[in-house]
Amino acid sequence: MKVSQIGEFGLIDKIKKDAIFNKKRVVQGIGDDTAVEKINGGMYLLSTCDMLVENIHFLRNVISPWQLGYKAAAVNLSDIAAMGGKPTGILVSIALPKDTDTEYIEEFYKGLKSICKEYETNLLGGDTVSSPKHIVVNVTALGEVPPKDLVLRSGAGIGDVVMVTGTLGDSAAGLEIILSKKDKSIYPGLLSRHLTPSPQVKEGMFLASLGLITSLNDISDGLASEISEIAKASQVGAKIIAEQIPLSEDVKNLAQEMGKDPLNWALYGGEDYHLIFTCHDQDCEIIKKMFRKKFKKELYKIGYIVPLEEGISLQKRGLTEPIIRKGYNHF
Amino acid sequence: MKVSQIGEFGLIDKIKKDAIFNKKRVVQGIGDDTAVEKINGGMYLLSTCDMLVENIHFLRNVISPWQLGYKAAAVNLSDIAAMGGKPTGILVSIALPKDTDTEYIEEFYKGLKSICKEYETNLLGGDTVSSPKHIVVNVTALGEVPPKDLVLRSGAGIGDVVMVTGTLGDSAAGLEIILSKKDKSIYPGLLSRHLTPSPQVKEGMFLASLGLITSLNDISDGLASEISEIAKASQVGAKIIAEQIPLSEDVKNLAQEMGKDPLNWALYGGEDYHLIFTCHDQDCEIIKKMFRKKFKKELYKIGYIVPLEEGISLQKRGLTEPIIRKGYNHF
Repeated sequence: MKVSQIGEFGLIDKIKKDAIFNKKRVVQGIGDDTAVEKINGGMYLLSTCDMLVENIHFLRNVISPWQLGYKAAAVNLSDIAAMGGKPTGILVSIALPKDTDTEYIEEFYKGLKSICKEYETNLLGGDTVSSPKHIVVNVTALGEVPPKDLVLRSGAGIGDVVMVTGTLGDSAAGLEIILSKKDKSIYPGLLSRHLTPSPQVKEGMFLASLGLITSLNDISDGLASEISEIAKASQVGAKIIAEQIPLSEDVKNLAQEMGKDPLNWALYGGEDYHLIFTCHDQDCEIIKKMFRKKFKKELYKIGYIVPLEEGISLQKRGLTEPIIRKGYNHF
Repeated sequence: MKVSQIGEFGLIDKIKKDAIFNKKRVVQGIGDDTAVEKINGGMYLLSTCDMLVENIHFLRNVISPWQLGYKAAAVNLSDIAAMGGKPTGILVSIALPKDTDTEYIEEFYKGLKSICKEYETNLLGGDTVSSPKHIVVNVTALGEVPPKDLVLRSGAGIGDVVMVTGTLGDSAAGLEIILSKKDKSIYPGLLSRHLTPSPQVKEGMFLASLGLITSLNDISDGLASEISEIAKASQVGAKIIAEQIPLSEDVKNLAQEMGKDPLNWALYGGEDYHLIFTCHDQDCEIIKKMFRKKFKKELYKIGYIVPLEEGISLQKRGLTEPIIRKGYNHF
């Protein structure tokens, strides 16, 4: 069998067996946004990594080296945010063809250091190697979270509401523009959501610190995939209300221009890097109010948690259809 | 200018500027075998990463997937050993062509988990993605060291002796066999030193715990490169005595068969993953004795630290020649 047939999720299931040889350190191994370790002292240590490969995850003529550096770190900081954690440092490996201009790598590191500065995260180390053909970037992010603030994927309970921290589908819409022959300057907001996403670190730390949310994930692979991960880890089902998924005006306008369904971008597009979380129904309004006061922006209630046997579904114009987790499969 | 012209060390000098945005955590940033961070509690947190690219660092028809998994972790555990630290966990990213057999990746993880088990190190997470053509592996290793045991590269002083934990050049000799038409079964020890190196973790922890050694490095890029790193970081020179560099019988025999100078393998071959360290002359014998008692093996004194202006040199049959740091440049 080929890896493309078994797929990323099949591989992860195989990999995560027999992976822990020192159990007493590990709070959460493979199977959430980051690993969580007990270390001496008051904090849990978080660690995560993501690899970006040219022509698979990015096109060199589309994303500038500055943006690539920024984004490679952003997607990892988002995983730290998805644990309610604070990023503390990153390690960066990059493989580059020998004939790459030094300006390219300097710009890459400028973008990377720019986001490090923005999030007060140290660039701790890395490896710079040559590549026969394609650019490959790997970022590992480290972070910390007070044990009482740690929120895993697995805590969602039946009756909980499902919330998100912002509009969805913007990144996928930005990618549509990039891949189309459209004028790239019309929707700068959508392009920047795709090329230089903003990890919701402060938002994740704030939400986790309230002690009121029951599960938390970042939306890296599309809403369909992320709600499926929460449901699977929590052993529950979920119902998402299509009309309540927040869509930006830009996304709606672009979808109309292109004759596309913007919901598809929100559900299956991925790379929005907003947060999705669940909380008890009765806490929903107070969380929204506190969040609004702190960040001057809205949280959106998009559905609720249902029993496992009801599955994961989308309710749209009164009809219910199953949500299939196609999302963003790395194979 | 191209990255191949500026080289890896030139790039590192550029990258390490303005990399730290939260100074109070950082004991050592870019510029040693690992980063070192102060965290809450008694230990320092160590982190390091290494990327291996097909056709640059390995050939798919030469190294089995099991060996690749083992080695990708080993080279990183060796960096933790080079700080006197204990590895605690690794994160692994791998990019694979879509048509790779699942057996390949299963064997890769078997090798990886085998060394994790051997060194009681957890496999904490990772990323599995597709690649247009070449296999790329990145491993990040985390570890810890008690602050009193941390040994940096920068502590070598004039008059110190230079020691190594084992024979050098074996790995380069193994690579010579692999790349030649020689029967691969004649020198299994040399092949395994190249394909499945043994990071000197217990040895590093023991040496560091003595409180007697002044600098420490692992020999990943050849003796010439590593002694140069210690000398540069410590602002000193060094004199290596050619006749005192330990060479295995296998290396000597193979060199004779092939008409090669085994010293070149030891000095410039790299990937031996033994440790090199310095200590005060008067502590040398007691360290050797304690090490022999603990590990039933020898330490080798190969030279001494001299003033900066004397440079880094090799003394061979009474003649002194400069050691040029060519080593293993990743570009």
